[in-house]
Amino acid sequence: MALYVHKYGGSSVADAEKIVDVARRLADVHDAGHQVVTVVSAMGDTTDELIELAQTVAREPDPRELDLLLSTGELVSITLLSMALRNLGYDAISLSGAQAGIRTDNTFGKARISAVDPDRVRRELAAGRLVIVAGFQGLTPDEDITTLGRGGSDTTAVALAAALDADRCDIYTDVEGIYTADPRVVAGAQKLTDVGYEEMLELAAAGAKMHPRSIELGAVYNVPIYVASSFSTAPGTLIHATPDEENMEDRIKVTGIAYQTNVAKVTVQGVADQPGVAAALFEPLASAGISVDTIVQNTSADRTTTDISFTVATTDLARALKEIERLQPAVGAATIISDDTLASVSVVGSGMQNTPGYASRMFRILADGGINIDMITTSEIRISCIINQQRAHDAVRLLHEGFQLDLAS
Amino acid sequence: MALYVHKYGGSSVADAEKIVDVARRLADVHDAGHQVVTVVSAMGDTTDELIELAQTVAREPDPRELDLLLSTGELVSITLLSMALRNLGYDAISLSGAQAGIRTDNTFGKARISAVDPDRVRRELAAGRLVIVAGFQGLTPDEDITTLGRGGSDTTAVALAAALDADRCDIYTDVEGIYTADPRVVAGAQKLTDVGYEEMLELAAAGAKMHPRSIELGAVYNVPIYVASSFSTAPGTLIHATPDEENMEDRIKVTGIAYQTNVAKVTVQGVADQPGVAAALFEPLASAGISVDTIVQNTSADRTTTDISFTVATTDLARALKEIERLQPAVGAATIISDDTLASVSVVGSGMQNTPGYASRMFRILADGGINIDMITTSEIRISCIINQQRAHDAVRLLHEGFQLDLAS
Repeated sequence: MALYVHKYGGSSVADAEKIVDVARRLADVHDAGHQVVTVVSAMGDTTDELIELAQTVAREPDPRELDLLLSTGELVSITLLSMALRNLGYDAISLSGAQAGIRTDNTFGKARISAVDPDRVRRELAAGRLVIVAGFQGLTPDEDITTLGRGGSDTTAVALAAALDADRCDIYTDVEGIYTADPRVVAGAQKLTDVGYEEMLELAAAGAKMHPRSIELGAVYNVPIYVASSFSTAPGTLIHATPDEENMEDRIKVTGIAYQTNVAKVTVQGVADQPGVAAALFEPLASAGISVDTIVQNTSADRTTTDISFTVATTDLARALKEIERLQPAVGAATIISDDTLASVSVVGSGMQNTPGYASRMFRILADGGINIDMITTSEIRISCIINQQRAHDAVRLLHEGFQLDLAS
Repeated sequence: MALYVHKYGGSSVADAEKIVDVARRLADVHDAGHQVVTVVSAMGDTTDELIELAQTVAREPDPRELDLLLSTGELVSITLLSMALRNLGYDAISLSGAQAGIRTDNTFGKARISAVDPDRVRRELAAGRLVIVAGFQGLTPDEDITTLGRGGSDTTAVALAAALDADRCDIYTDVEGIYTADPRVVAGAQKLTDVGYEEMLELAAAGAKMHPRSIELGAVYNVPIYVASSFSTAPGTLIHATPDEENMEDRIKVTGIAYQTNVAKVTVQGVADQPGVAAALFEPLASAGISVDTIVQNTSADRTTTDISFTVATTDLARALKEIERLQPAVGAATIISDDTLASVSVVGSGMQNTPGYASRMFRILADGGINIDMITTSEIRISCIINQQRAHDAVRLLHEGFQLDLAS
């Protein structure tokens, strides 16, 4: 008997019919003799609809009140799923985030899980029940309801799997797994059988379907995460610890090509080249909740001033520019330039750091395709280039072909 | 500075505009220097819609799951009201039943409040906040969410008022107060300035707008309850302890005429006239959750068998008949007769027990109107007659006129 945590997203429980389908899938797992805890998101677009409803009574809804409001979305989906299972003759129970022991800090709107108290879930499992848990929500020490922000339900699922010492955490979604590139862009994209946490983190950060926070949590607590389709039984992708050293050499060095199209760049020119300038620029951006991705600082010719460039999501550009313009006098910047027509493409692979030549091969492929590179950043297992947005899909296809990912692994 | 508990029903918070109207009314109370805790029902027909939603996935939704589902209705309305107050510049906070300390037993669907722990509410009031509490819901010792059943939000409000030792509990609804008769039936019906708890209980049990359980609670904890319109500032009706003896003689003896049209009668003929028969009949009905109203047992001619008649809501008749037919052999009943075309009309007044002749006057008025009386029951402060449903409105009008309630009090 294994213990699984399953997670179904909003599109998988969008209506009564889909909820009954999920109930049947869970019943099969139970019939096979396994224990299963299922984390569910709100039905379809419920969360967006509740946000719109809030805005009918308040221009800027209070974050604490908004979280209590949004938490109702998952309460609806968990109770319906539990009722559907009971209607099929199975003993099921739904638990709110609070009831399932999901404890968080009090950062409303994007709370972080501080602990999971799995006593109630364990008790219900021991009673032979299928347990359905509300994703995306938790309880503060003051007993206020929080929501976990983007990727929240995945995070709930992995955190529960860690706390319960589950055999695996299955994330069921509207794609069949993790691919070597976006299948909508690259016809020959291959589904990965498995992928390491760190590779997946780089893929996720660079545009693949999962939010990085749940993968980070999986890596820390060594929870195997299986990503598969909720609408089919096709095999998915297993995200797990890097395979043993002996298999290392056999692995393809490049795992996949990722991209993001909503990239905007800000360049602050003529900044005084002295300690503390970078902090003076980026601390206010962090306080304003603006996530900065790539940062590049060039050495200046005269060594008294420098240029700093960074990228943000295009949706954050206006706010970022407002902050930077406010800081302009303090950091002695001469000029601020921005460009919101950019994209990033990344080559990701855990084997890359041991083998030279991947970066130059990437640059050559892009150059041969006539694609200009605006900025470059690298990590241990990722090389990313900022390029023109209109060439993003071309770049992904060229890189996928150039690194021979079209061949079955 | 006074402390008030207000309660607004579903029709008073049916849409965003009405919620903002309620927020403005609460802001006025706050501006006048008072503390106010507001209990809110779910918006409009939300509860019915959630029940329908549950029935799309399960023929008979599990009561525990249904309660957790239904509890979301009030979470939506309290958060929106709190947001609306904050949008007007007031410091407000919404609390679920659990957060507001409403503790209940675990009778899902119709839980009873076992205790109120008002610490959190007191703390928020002390911080100068307007506190908005979800009506109709509570928390069991196992931390499961319950709903309180019919009249639940009124009960939440009165229980909170008792626990907080509030100066008054105001129930705002879609009528302007308690009348001497249903104003839709009797054109000359008079609004009562005040009424005693016991009179109100008899009026409520016989068809007036409030559910008896909140009035019972108000009587036990001596909470003054003010019933008024949420859509106007017209004076309402104060339900409170019976006035002092010195004013007693001045009071009109009859307070009002109440009626119910959904009355069905069951007559069990030829029951063995021996101890335990009544218990054998009515215990199974109670276990099945069927509320029996009037019970009449006639002395039989031969003293070996008797006839027992009782009334139930017409919606419960089929289930009641099924139970009784099952019991027929055990109690030795010869025949079972039923009639679902009945109504009850009641004359209610706290002064009646001291003055003879009210019952005979009631019977004379009905007789003069050509209305046949099927059953009669009396309490200390009520006389009720079961009559034909089609004559119910005539009976109310004739009694209202006959007891001179058309005259301003």
